[in-house]
Amino acid sequence: MRTIDWQDGHIVAIDQTRLPAELAVLHIHTVDELIDAIKRLAIRGAPALGVAGALGVALAAGDPELAQRLKAARPTAVNLAWGVDRVLSRPDAMLAEALSVLEEDITINQALSRRGAEWLLNRVGSPVEVQTHCNAGALACVEWGTALGVVRALQERGALSHVYVGETRPLLQGCRLTTWELTQLGIPHTLVADAAGPSVIARGLVNAVVVGADRIAANGDVINKIGTYPLALAAHRAGIPFVVAAPESTVDAATPTGADVQIEVRDEVELTHFAGTRISAKETRALNYAFDITPADLVTVIVTQHRALERDAAVRPQHPRRAL
Amino acid sequence: MRTIDWQDGHIVAIDQTRLPAELAVLHIHTVDELIDAIKRLAIRGAPALGVAGALGVALAAGDPELAQRLKAARPTAVNLAWGVDRVLSRPDAMLAEALSVLEEDITINQALSRRGAEWLLNRVGSPVEVQTHCNAGALACVEWGTALGVVRALQERGALSHVYVGETRPLLQGCRLTTWELTQLGIPHTLVADAAGPSVIARGLVNAVVVGADRIAANGDVINKIGTYPLALAAHRAGIPFVVAAPESTVDAATPTGADVQIEVRDEVELTHFAGTRISAKETRALNYAFDITPADLVTVIVTQHRALERDAAVRPQHPRRAL
Repeated sequence: MRTIDWQDGHIVAIDQTRLPAELAVLHIHTVDELIDAIKRLAIRGAPALGVAGALGVALAAGDPELAQRLKAARPTAVNLAWGVDRVLSRPDAMLAEALSVLEEDITINQALSRRGAEWLLNRVGSPVEVQTHCNAGALACVEWGTALGVVRALQERGALSHVYVGETRPLLQGCRLTTWELTQLGIPHTLVADAAGPSVIARGLVNAVVVGADRIAANGDVINKIGTYPLALAAHRAGIPFVVAAPESTVDAATPTGADVQIEVRDEVELTHFAGTRISAKETRALNYAFDITPADLVTVIVTQHRALERDAAVRPQHPRRAL
Repeated sequence: MRTIDWQDGHIVAIDQTRLPAELAVLHIHTVDELIDAIKRLAIRGAPALGVAGALGVALAAGDPELAQRLKAARPTAVNLAWGVDRVLSRPDAMLAEALSVLEEDITINQALSRRGAEWLLNRVGSPVEVQTHCNAGALACVEWGTALGVVRALQERGALSHVYVGETRPLLQGCRLTTWELTQLGIPHTLVADAAGPSVIARGLVNAVVVGADRIAANGDVINKIGTYPLALAAHRAGIPFVVAAPESTVDAATPTGADVQIEVRDEVELTHFAGTRISAKETRALNYAFDITPADLVTVIVTQHRALERDAAVRPQHPRRAL
């Protein structure tokens, strides 16, 4: 089934907080329900948020106040605002435009995945061994995926050997969602702690890092799930490519650099507690950045449905591979 | 109370798996009980393992087979084997030698902490803002601590402003133990996800990284808790010092480089499950490195009770601070 869809005048979506234990479906009839689902990450992933923004405006029949509240539900990913604005710009045909955003998501992701797979086959050859982070798969989109879309395109070509997945604390999207998707696809994979990803890279267990993005600034800085930046640092030192796979709607020409992006800080309870029980000392406070900024010079290539934007500087090995 | 001690002919130790919820004490009468406590990390931390090795040989009355099994309980930290061997070398006075190891631990850590604090005050000035990882505090030693000993020495001098602590997945030593110690000491601190440590550094929230070590190779490579290497990469890029605080017994002249160290791989259940419940997809396998290797060129200084070993190359800023 699709991660998010439009049926009988309302939104249906997989409740991603319940995976992998249960495949539960949400039926969303109001913008308030949609905002709640987005804030608690039942619907998440930059491309899926773009579709949610588009369908949400249709649900709100273009109500401008509801549209503004929807845009503000999560501040970092640009796709949510992009989806809202795109449908608002077609007051004559809001539902048709929202359904276009929905359908286009699939073809866009398949196109960028093909491009990413071909770029990797040219650069590192077959087989490709990938470190990824968080979930940039079908569950982050309508279906197919971005970073995991590239992985699937490699698998279709018989050119994929293994995927290492960071668990993605605190909400464990890598542990819960990416392992579930890769299991369903029959793709060999291994779960690692986020802190271990740089060691997986340093030890030569992978020859590429492939991640999605929540926003790409005009200068090429990439905003993605917290934990992306350490993988970029490690890839740079190991001399392996750091590949960002994202639709063009993730590129935000209005934001000059990563420093200009509002980085969402989530509730500290996600770190101090687990499943409702406190795990840290009682008085301890936490700082829960949801995203980090990977400077453009660490990004080897940004692959979209239209282009592969290379930064050659980032792939010059500073140190030989397997140096550790 | 002391983390580990000798009372009435047996070992008493804080059960670190029960903190911060409960301060429970273990009474250990046999080497088998000691090995079990070490393997499940009820007793952990490189200096404390050195003391456990020493007291364990006294408990075993020098039995060579038990001593060998004790040395093998955790392979990465060199201190455990060092403590065992030191007491075995004094068959005439095993208990006295073990008690010397115990008492020396405190004075050694206080000496290296003073040295580390003074080095930091010279290099970065007051106040020092520290990022640390895992637990290198009193709970990793008999009392006082190594990396957190440096933090305490800074606090005593009125030169400490704040400590950021990585939660340290999968067993959460930072979240459970370091926050508990810092709370007891009244030291302002903030818990972050391991994946967020490099962002804390890039954003200029700290001006030094201070960690302990489980083994230091002859070439200066540092083996420490998984997640240390990404902090070193981020510190190097930000141009802030990366400080390793450890007793001389951690330096292993017999191991040429980090690549020659056996890195402990722990049970994958620590990643796939939480509190007995599976959190990843059912078939997913995990790779659970307990430690990583920080290459010597990323280490600014190693501080022991005897010396401050500097690597000037590592503190040359590649990029200006607050570059992100």
